[in-house]
Parts: sequence; C-alpha cells; structure tokens
Amino acid sequence: MQITGTFLDEISHDIPHQNWGENEWRADFRHMKAVGIDTVILIRSGYRKFITYPSTYLLNNHGCYEPPVDLVDLFLRLADEEGMNFYFGLYDSGKYWDTGDMQHEIDANRFVIDEVWQRYGHYKSFKGWYLSMEISRKTKGAAHAFQTLGLQCKQVSNGLPTLISPWIDGKKAVMAASSSLSKEDAVSIREHESEWSEIFDGIRGAVDAVAFQDGHIDYNELDDFFAVNKRMADKYGLKCWTNAESFDRDMPIKFLPIKFEKLRLKLEAARRAGYDKAITFEFSHFMSPQSAYLQAGHLYNRYKEYIAQLPK
Amino acid sequence: MQITGTFLDEISHDIPHQNWGENEWRADFRHMKAVGIDTVILIRSGYRKFITYPSTYLLNNHGCYEPPVDLVDLFLRLADEEGMNFYFGLYDSGKYWDTGDMQHEIDANRFVIDEVWQRYGHYKSFKGWYLSMEISRKTKGAAHAFQTLGLQCKQVSNGLPTLISPWIDGKKAVMAASSSLSKEDAVSIREHESEWSEIFDGIRGAVDAVAFQDGHIDYNELDDFFAVNKRMADKYGLKCWTNAESFDRDMPIKFLPIKFEKLRLKLEAARRAGYDKAITFEFSHFMSPQSAYLQAGHLYNRYKEYIAQLPK
Amino acid sequence: MQITGTFLDEISHDIPHQNWGENEWRADFRHMKAVGIDTVILIRSGYRKFITYPSTYLLNNHGCYEPPVDLVDLFLRLADEEGMNFYFGLYDSGKYWDTGDMQHEIDANRFVIDEVWQRYGHYKSFKGWYLSMEISRKTKGAAHAFQTLGLQCKQVSNGLPTLISPWIDGKKAVMAASSSLSKEDAVSIREHESEWSEIFDGIRGAVDAVAFQDGHIDYNELDDFFAVNKRMADKYGLKCWTNAESFDRDMPIKFLPIKFEKLRLKLEAARRAGYDKAITFEFSHFMSPQSAYLQAGHLYNRYKEYIAQLPK
Repeated sequence: MQITGTFLDEISHDIPHQNWGENEWRADFRHMKAVGIDTVILIRSGYRKFITYPSTYLLNNHGCYEPPVDLVDLFLRLADEEGMNFYFGLYDSGKYWDTGDMQHEIDANRFVIDEVWQRYGHYKSFKGWYLSMEISRKTKGAAHAFQTLGLQCKQVSNGLPTLISPWIDGKKAVMAASSSLSKEDAVSIREHESEWSEIFDGIRGAVDAVAFQDGHIDYNELDDFFAVNKRMADKYGLKCWTNAESFDRDMPIKFLPIKFEKLRLKLEAARRAGYDKAITFEFSHFMSPQSAYLQAGHLYNRYKEYIAQLPK
Repeated sequence: MQITGTFLDEISHDIPHQNWGENEWRADFRHMKAVGIDTVILIRSGYRKFITYPSTYLLNNHGCYEPPVDLVDLFLRLADEEGMNFYFGLYDSGKYWDTGDMQHEIDANRFVIDEVWQRYGHYKSFKGWYLSMEISRKTKGAAHAFQTLGLQCKQVSNGLPTLISPWIDGKKAVMAASSSLSKEDAVSIREHESEWSEIFDGIRGAVDAVAFQDGHIDYNELDDFFAVNKRMADKYGLKCWTNAESFDRDMPIKFLPIKFEKLRLKLEAARRAGYDKAITFEFSHFMSPQSAYLQAGHLYNRYKEYIAQLPK
Repeated sequence: MQITGTFLDEISHDIPHQNWGENEWRADFRHMKAVGIDTVILIRSGYRKFITYPSTYLLNNHGCYEPPVDLVDLFLRLADEEGMNFYFGLYDSGKYWDTGDMQHEIDANRFVIDEVWQRYGHYKSFKGWYLSMEISRKTKGAAHAFQTLGLQCKQVSNGLPTLISPWIDGKKAVMAASSSLSKEDAVSIREHESEWSEIFDGIRGAVDAVAFQDGHIDYNELDDFFAVNKRMADKYGLKCWTNAESFDRDMPIKFLPIKFEKLRLKLEAARRAGYDKAITFEFSHFMSPQSAYLQAGHLYNRYKEYIAQLPK
C-alpha cells in the first residue's frame, strides 16, 4: 500500500523544527510528489500562541505571536504548483489539553474557519479540512466538537471533505515527554470497537474520513484493530484511511525515523484490511532526503524500492 | 538585535560532543565572523576531571585527565586570527553541584586564574573572564564567590572585564536529564527582582556584565523579566547582556536547535528592553552550517536573512 | 590500543535504525577495514518478533515477522569480500527480559544454531559465535545458559570460538529508557570479582572470550576493574577483550557518539591492563563517516589521527 498523503508539521508541538525556508519547502514538495504523494495536510494552523499565518483574529484575541512567514500561503502556493490537495488543520488553543474542555476549540475555530476560507479559499489546491484535535476514546465532548466544527467547515466551503486522525489507546499511548515507552492499561479491541462506534455514530455527516494513528499498538495487533476500524468506518459511512507513522515509538530518542521494516508491516496490514488511503506523520522530518535526520533519506530510498516492486 | 557573541562548549556537560579538530574549529570561527560575532566565551575550562588545557595544577591536584588537545590555546589562536575577543571560563569542579558549597570553586580557581593568565595572557584576543558558575536566585554564597573570583580575575589581568550568565528560576528551569519540560513553582517577577537586586549589590565592582539565560521563562514573560533585569543592571552598574539560547527547551529531545521564530522573539524582546549585547549558547551546535544537527545550518540561513533586513 | 572488531546492530533494540541498503553496508565494511577492523559481530540475530534472516524455525514457532532482507547473508558476503571474521549473535526472544528465566533462550537457540550453521556455515568468514544474552552479576542461570549454548555452538561448528559481552553493574548501569544517568547502588570491585569468578568458573570450556562493556563505570574506575577482569580471565582461561562503547552514556540524548577523549581513556586503560583485543559497540552509528550522526564521522577522523601516531 502506497502512502499518498502526508501531514505538514510546522507548528512544532514535540518534533524539533527544521528551520526551512521557501526553497527547502519547494524541494520537499517535489520529493513528496516523486513518491506519489498527492495530499498534504497541515497538522494544525496554530498551537497556543504560535501560529502559521498572520491571523487577525488570533493575534487580536488570543495574544498570538506574529509569525515570521505565512506558511499557509506558502503551502497552498506549493500545492498549487505541484497539483496537490491541501487540507487545512484547525487551530489548537492548548486549552483542551489543560482543561479537558473542547468548547474552547469550538469557539476559537468558529472565527478561524471563516477567516481562513475568506483569505485562502480561492487557491485551487484548498481541498479539505483537518479537524486537528487529536482525541482518543476517553476524550469528553469529542463527538460534539467534531460534529460542530466539521459542519462549519463544510458549510463555508461548499462541502469540502473533513478528516480526523485520532489515536488508539494502546500500549504505546504514552506522552512524548515521558521517559517510558509503554503502559499497562491498554484498551482491549472490544472496548475500542464499542467506544469508537459511539463516536463515529455521533460525527456522521460532519466527518468524511478517519485516519487512525497506527503507532500506539503492537505490530501483531495491527490486523485485529485495522479490521475493526474498517468495519466501523463502513458501517457509519466514513472513509477509512491509515495514518502510518514514519517515526519510531520504540526508541529512547523521541523521535527519529522508523525502521523501514516496521513501516512496511503497518502499510501491509492496512492493505489487507482494505483501507482507502495511507497518509503519514510525517514526510519532511522522517522520510525526506533533505531531513535533518539522515536516516530519513535512507528510509526514502528503501520506500522507493518497495513501491517500485508493488503490483500496479 | 544581532548576536555578537557565543559560548564555546567544549567541556561537554549535557550537549553531546562533535569531535571537531582544528580545521573544523577554524571554519566555525569564520562562520561566526560572517554573521557578526566578535566575542567567544569558553563556557568552562574544565568540568570535574575533564579539562580543556593541560593544567599542571588541575592534573596534579584534582586528578584530572590529560586532555588530547589544548583547546584554550587553539581557541585563542583562532580568535587572534579572526580578530575576536576571547573570554576565559573558569573551572567547575562539580563539587558545588554535589555539596552546595561554592568554596571549592573559589579555592580551585585561585590557582587556575593565575596559571591561565601566565600561560595565555599574552594573546591579544584574551579580553575577559567568564565566571562559569551557573547560579540562580537560591544559590547560597554566590555573591561572595563571584565577588572573590571576579576581583582576582581583574587583579591578575589589569582589570579585564568579567561576565556571569545566571538563569532565571522560571517554569522551564528543570534538569536536562529530567523527562519533564516545566515545573510548577516558578519564581515571580517580584521575587526575581528582590533576590537579584541583593546579589547584584553584592557583586558590584567585581562583575562587569550579566547575561541572563533567556530560555527558562515563557515567551510572553520576556518583556517583564527583561525590563526588570535592565533596571537592576543599570542601578548596580552592570552591563546588561542577553544569553539568547539557540537550542529548544520545549522538545522531548534535549537538546536540538531552536525554531527561528522563538529566537527572534527573544532577540526582539532584548532589543525592546535596551540590552547592551546579545550572546548565544551556542553557535557551534545550534547555529553553525557545519553542526551535526542539520537544523542548525538552516537556522543560520534564517538568521542571516533576518539580520540582513534589520535597520542599520 | 586499536579497535579491531565491531558489533553490527541491525536488530535495533534501543538505537534507532539507519535504514541502510546493501550499498551503504558495503561502504561501511570498507570504512571499518580502513581503520583496522577485522571482526564483525552480529549483536543478535533476532529480538522478539523482528529477525535478521528468514528463519523457518522462528517464523513458524515464534510468530516472527518475515524480514525484508536477509541481513545475515548480506553481512557474511561482505565479510567474505573484505576478508573479515563474522561472529553470529544468537536470537533473543525477549522472554528472559520479561520473566528472568534463561531457559527460553536456551530452547529457542537450540534450533537457531543448527539452522544457521546449516544455511550459512559454508561462508569462509563465519568464524565464531556471540552468545548475545547481555547479563550482569545478578543474572540467574547465566552460567548454565552460557555453558549449554556455548557448547552447542562449538559442537555444530567444529569448535568455532564463542564470545560474551556482559556489563559491569556500575553506577551508569541504568535502563536506556530511564531519564536518569546514574544510580546509587553500584557494585564494588570486590563483589564484582567474587561474583564473576563464580560465573567464569561455570562457563569454562564453553566460552572463549569475554568482552565486558566498558561504559557502566566511571573513567577513574577503569584501571581497577580492568585489572580484575584480566586477572579473572587469565585464571579461568578466557581471552580478555574490551567492548569499548563508542556512544556517550553521560548525555541526556540516549545515545549519540562519544567524545573522542573518553574513548581514548578507555582504550588506553585496556592497553595498560594487557587486554587481548578491543571491539566496539558500534561502528556504524557512532564511528562511521556515513553515520546519520555526523559527530561519528568526526570521531572517525579523530580516531584515525590517534591510531596513526600509536607505536607499531
């Protein structure tokens, strides 16, 4: 199964910044294109006070810092140049992480969505929305928030598709800043299905595709969880994508590029489960020939060899 | 505000070593010069048993290891070549960290200062001393130690200037080896002012410049803390520099180069506060085109673009 | 003292993968050869479900994943090409780590040893076995396991030599995933000698060489521990090698290449103790000019300068 989409991680939450300028970004979009990537998804348009575009609303109302460059505009121009689809990731105020209340995210994004569509909606590559709240089964109010935000995105943009990318509450679902690599109280497949069925039911019509992050469960659990995800997605009318993480969750350095063998295992499990599309978090740090992590360039080469021998 | 000084980190305390030889160091001094750096500051001349120059005193009395190269001599030669100012950082026995008693540092450096001035004082680039004890407000005996050491440095060297670079006990003041990124009991601006006024008063005449590390507080606290620092420095007759950290304290990997936007925020806050000079910790790992961290080279390029458009 | 052997770390336990293909591996064997390395030691042939060669036994009986490439075959071909000696590292089921019972490792490797010798024993570079269980003094059943496995290796292969590489239970013996760098309850030299004498006595005849990892004790303890190790090895008829770790255990990033000065200290202590051979963990990440960690290439250069000036 081929990766045809990638997140763009330029409000850096826990992945160190590469400090690229326009030239490096343009080269990277071309590297993406060369391995069949047709979709780029901005992971979020802002995180707390750091933002990717000079949003009048966020500067005035959230005390955000004036960004040195308009990354949203840059990414849309490059996506236009390369004929790729761009998904806009909503703003993350950080308040949900602090308070557990999704209402902050709904309130802030009400304005962000309008502003962004007005400013950037004319780009031909603007093709969808990414509801950037990363939730898991225990996230209170998630279905309601996704419903509200998804509908608003669609409304302003004549129904452009919306995407979510939640995580499975598996054994590797630990905080990036934690020194441990796994936890004991992982979710069972049965709980996963029951809780996510409820959420999927609640977001019907407002969310078009779900791309579960594939890195929180063990490799031998992939088939079971993927089968359940596909069954649920089909039942509730969602597209089922996989978010094939290209960084390695099993190492003390958090995070460097994944071992190719692991990425392959995950992509093949997604293919067996009949998934609709594979995207990755993310190309520019973990798979790009120009990544600051040189292992990424080698992963790019291994991946190219792999897709060259896939059946057409 | 332009960075015109950098630390040289070659007794590596918590930043992994780059294993450069003379050629790489020479190239790095040139990269520094090219972006306006006129001052290099040896972060410390020794840490516990590892030392930067073959000190007879430290080899005989502290069981230090014979260093493979005389870095102090190398750095002074290169500073001479490039017309830069070199500040010598005192020896850190590690005993203060273990016992909380500064007396060890005073005792050891009494000999180090004499030895170093005798050996290297003739270099035209030898232009100052860095009192390398990194202290915060709670460091017992710090004012007395700085007073003693600063006066001795000045005495042997005909009054060459002395520099300190303490940290603000802010929310990000956590140990490098800790897995957390912030703490709850950060200092208030009022406590900061009261405690540091006392310290500044106690080091008057012995210390010429103070460069607070700028990375332990949040970006929206910069203006408040910087204003207080400048007011205190003015009141007690110290030059007020900023130590603009070029590594990122907000990431799980401790430490990689900082996001340019963050560095810019800190430099501009220092400019607004009317600071006298900006130095960084440190160029060679975090801003150099030849750093092992390739993000550093991109930071160098972003920084060059930034200073090119500053008003002259 | 010159390093003449290196581990090959391609089932990555805690060191992130470089994703090299055959070309990069061939180049790396040449870089090794150029600095006098004549022996390569596969760190382990499998770890839990990830394996280095398509073992019928492990695929069928341990649920292992089909590897994308046969690394054992690749390494043996390259060792043949370069005239190097290859040691095969046994399979690590992970069960010892989970249960404390070595019997799992004995049972699995009974089949692995036969299979591997049958498949790869004809390569002229197949010159020894590495009993890959990394043990320390408290490892229950270690002597018995080494005895059993060592004898079996020798039996199938007409007595090819066997190697172990245990760790000293020193102050830096902390888990890679732990955020701390040292611990309080380090072993004393006396306990070390008494406990290891017992183990050495128990593995006589089944193990030919022991290469203690040199990174768990402080630099000023090297001479004492090395002298004891050599004395014990001599007494019980083992070759005494050192495993000179080329990564730095003293840094918050776990793990990057070591400071050359530290590597030199360790090699010189091994020379003073009269050790028979120095190997390293490991060349390809931490000393190679093509490592993803660029510090490694500089370490390679420093090391080359060092061996160039050693007495012949």
